[in-house]
Amino acid sequence: MEKTDAIDGKVDEASSREGSVCGYDSLHHLLSANLKPHLFQEVSRILLGLNRGKALETISLPESAKVLSSGHDFDLQAYCFLADKELLREPRIVRVGLIQNSIALPTTAHFLDQKRAIFEKVKPIIDAAGASGVNVLCLQEAWTMPFAFCTREKRWCEFAEPVDGESTRFIQDLARKYNMVIISPILERDVNHGDTIWNTAVIIGNNGNIIGKHRKNDSGQNHIPRVGDFNESTYYMEGNTGHPVFETAYGKIAVNICYGRHHPLNWLAFGLNGAEIVFNPSATVGELSEPMWPIEARNAAIANSYFVGSINRVGTEVFPNPFTSGDGKPEHADFGHFYGSSHVSAPDNSCTPSLSRHRDGLLISDMDLNLCRQLKDKWGFRMTARYDLYADLLARYVKPDFDPQVISDPLLHKKSP
Amino acid sequence: MEKTDAIDGKVDEASSREGSVCGYDSLHHLLSANLKPHLFQEVSRILLGLNRGKALETISLPESAKVLSSGHDFDLQAYCFLADKELLREPRIVRVGLIQNSIALPTTAHFLDQKRAIFEKVKPIIDAAGASGVNVLCLQEAWTMPFAFCTREKRWCEFAEPVDGESTRFIQDLARKYNMVIISPILERDVNHGDTIWNTAVIIGNNGNIIGKHRKNDSGQNHIPRVGDFNESTYYMEGNTGHPVFETAYGKIAVNICYGRHHPLNWLAFGLNGAEIVFNPSATVGELSEPMWPIEARNAAIANSYFVGSINRVGTEVFPNPFTSGDGKPEHADFGHFYGSSHVSAPDNSCTPSLSRHRDGLLISDMDLNLCRQLKDKWGFRMTARYDLYADLLARYVKPDFDPQVISDPLLHKKSP
Repeated sequence: MEKTDAIDGKVDEASSREGSVCGYDSLHHLLSANLKPHLFQEVSRILLGLNRGKALETISLPESAKVLSSGHDFDLQAYCFLADKELLREPRIVRVGLIQNSIALPTTAHFLDQKRAIFEKVKPIIDAAGASGVNVLCLQEAWTMPFAFCTREKRWCEFAEPVDGESTRFIQDLARKYNMVIISPILERDVNHGDTIWNTAVIIGNNGNIIGKHRKNDSGQNHIPRVGDFNESTYYMEGNTGHPVFETAYGKIAVNICYGRHHPLNWLAFGLNGAEIVFNPSATVGELSEPMWPIEARNAAIANSYFVGSINRVGTEVFPNPFTSGDGKPEHADFGHFYGSSHVSAPDNSCTPSLSRHRDGLLISDMDLNLCRQLKDKWGFRMTARYDLYADLLARYVKPDFDPQVISDPLLHKKSP
Repeated sequence: MEKTDAIDGKVDEASSREGSVCGYDSLHHLLSANLKPHLFQEVSRILLGLNRGKALETISLPESAKVLSSGHDFDLQAYCFLADKELLREPRIVRVGLIQNSIALPTTAHFLDQKRAIFEKVKPIIDAAGASGVNVLCLQEAWTMPFAFCTREKRWCEFAEPVDGESTRFIQDLARKYNMVIISPILERDVNHGDTIWNTAVIIGNNGNIIGKHRKNDSGQNHIPRVGDFNESTYYMEGNTGHPVFETAYGKIAVNICYGRHHPLNWLAFGLNGAEIVFNPSATVGELSEPMWPIEARNAAIANSYFVGSINRVGTEVFPNPFTSGDGKPEHADFGHFYGSSHVSAPDNSCTPSLSRHRDGLLISDMDLNLCRQLKDKWGFRMTARYDLYADLLARYVKPDFDPQVISDPLLHKKSP
């Protein structure tokens, strides 16, 4: 399943503003190409959580999917997570796909052309997912547009669409065709609420229907990034839909959009509502987050006993007008390199290798959802969580006069060292 | 600072029950010895979160500390975390030490001999910390004894001591001598409450005083492991001290004992109470947790904008009577290999390399506590956390009739795929 066109140890130092090196395809490829097999196996045991002592099995995909992958130059990898056999439940194996992609036209092109060129680019990747029998597919955050929020220009708001807009109709056709649940994260224009803009995941059922459309399940996003001067809350509002879990034909899924992955409470809430797979469609660049990327997703999968599908776009998006980033550095026309590296984390702490840092890609994973409850039974995190303590703490904490539990050394103010 | 007596790529397949390989000292050493320098630098950028583009600086330690390290054969490493200069606050640099060690005598020896042999073994490591000017030092979980809870035998309860018992007096002398705050995690016998046993961290101030002694700060532990058949709650009770933060001469510290690291809410609570450094003294073996070891600690440091010091004991402890582990495998006399690998995680997602997987060790880190607030300002996680949503959710969740927020596909029960 793995492409071997990657790394030979060469590195391009000047490759991106954040000083990362671009001459390799993924950390996994770099390590497998440069370590002896028995050492790579041990490193994988620790880094990918492969405690069962061997690599995740790869899945054999149909020739048509491989042809699409090579013809359209996207990374294609497929793995299988195992669970124990149970006596009273049949395995509940779901085939999940994650798609990462770069934009298709320069950001100077007409917006409609940009959007439709992305449709054309993403379609063969969705076709490959369909040909491979994927049951649940998730696209990246705001997949219909460049990630323009760094510019602070309002013109990009024109990319926003109603939940039943053009991109949804495009996806609905494919969902129906392939009997596939598809999560389509878009910038939403809410015409029924004064043209408010939301960062929204549209959940499209395997019959092409919009699941929860009547409940305005417009967003799984509750936390808007305000990082340095990068404040997406000038573009769209904090979500008002809580932490919905969508019961689909293939399991209970939820969506934690982008920056929401930094909040353990956000992950927790989807778990308390019963999610078995939580998708994290994102758009994030190397300097901001690359070392945190696997940590937060895997921690969420472990702590909440569910699968996590992490998706990040790829490439560097150059905008017409240079902008500053509130960091004292000169103006620049791009936000940095979106490093892809989409991957799946499992509740038993194992993890797939990541997709390419540079190329479009489709990551397919078979997961037996029975693994979620098996881990709850084995590790007991839900049982030992003592939520009552924290319900009480948080209720006190949100009050303006919260008094933290601090025990001071009584000698502290008598004798300073 | 780094020992280079480690890895050459050789691997001992038969080294431990869980099938890990023992022929290398740490993941960091394995990678640095087997990758070309420019590749190792890139791998470190991602794995150790060194986004500033270079490795953590090492600290120059006094000759006396090095002599103790080689004379008593313990790993000694020292690193420095940097923070930005501020205009209105001076740097608040604290030198923190973590100690990991194996037991000193066979578990068949007289308990008093076992305990005192551990004292003798740990003393030169504490002396090295003292000679190095360490301000805050933390020992491993239940450091005075073998980690016997896996046996389910009650005889090991004899290792429990009052908070002002022999081990505390031993530590108090050293704290006073070196003007050092020392965290001493022990099994506590609470004679004032019917001989109840707790898993307790005694916080000893730099003047040798027990900080908070009068508040019975007998435990930072709120979550008792119930993993498979391994149930420590038959040995000691769930803590009743909340999530105290101790204001010491060198900063606000807290202790999250062992299994508590699996609970993001537990980490959160110490953060809400104002902790700047949270120690996680642990005892955990390869098969159970090694791939999760760096993930959970680093996630906690990132999510809560504080430093985390993670400590795990080393070695394999063989008990007199074989026991089973509820996993269908034959009886065995040890719980597995305690893999050491103590390390420090910072709020900016950087991380030190880990101490040895096999040897006793002292890890020293200089940390400017100003980094905590700098990250709160930069990433804004505290500001965007929307705690009110979660206070409400948890209050509802703990009720028996909690109704999860689930949106079902309306076509689900009409037409099953």
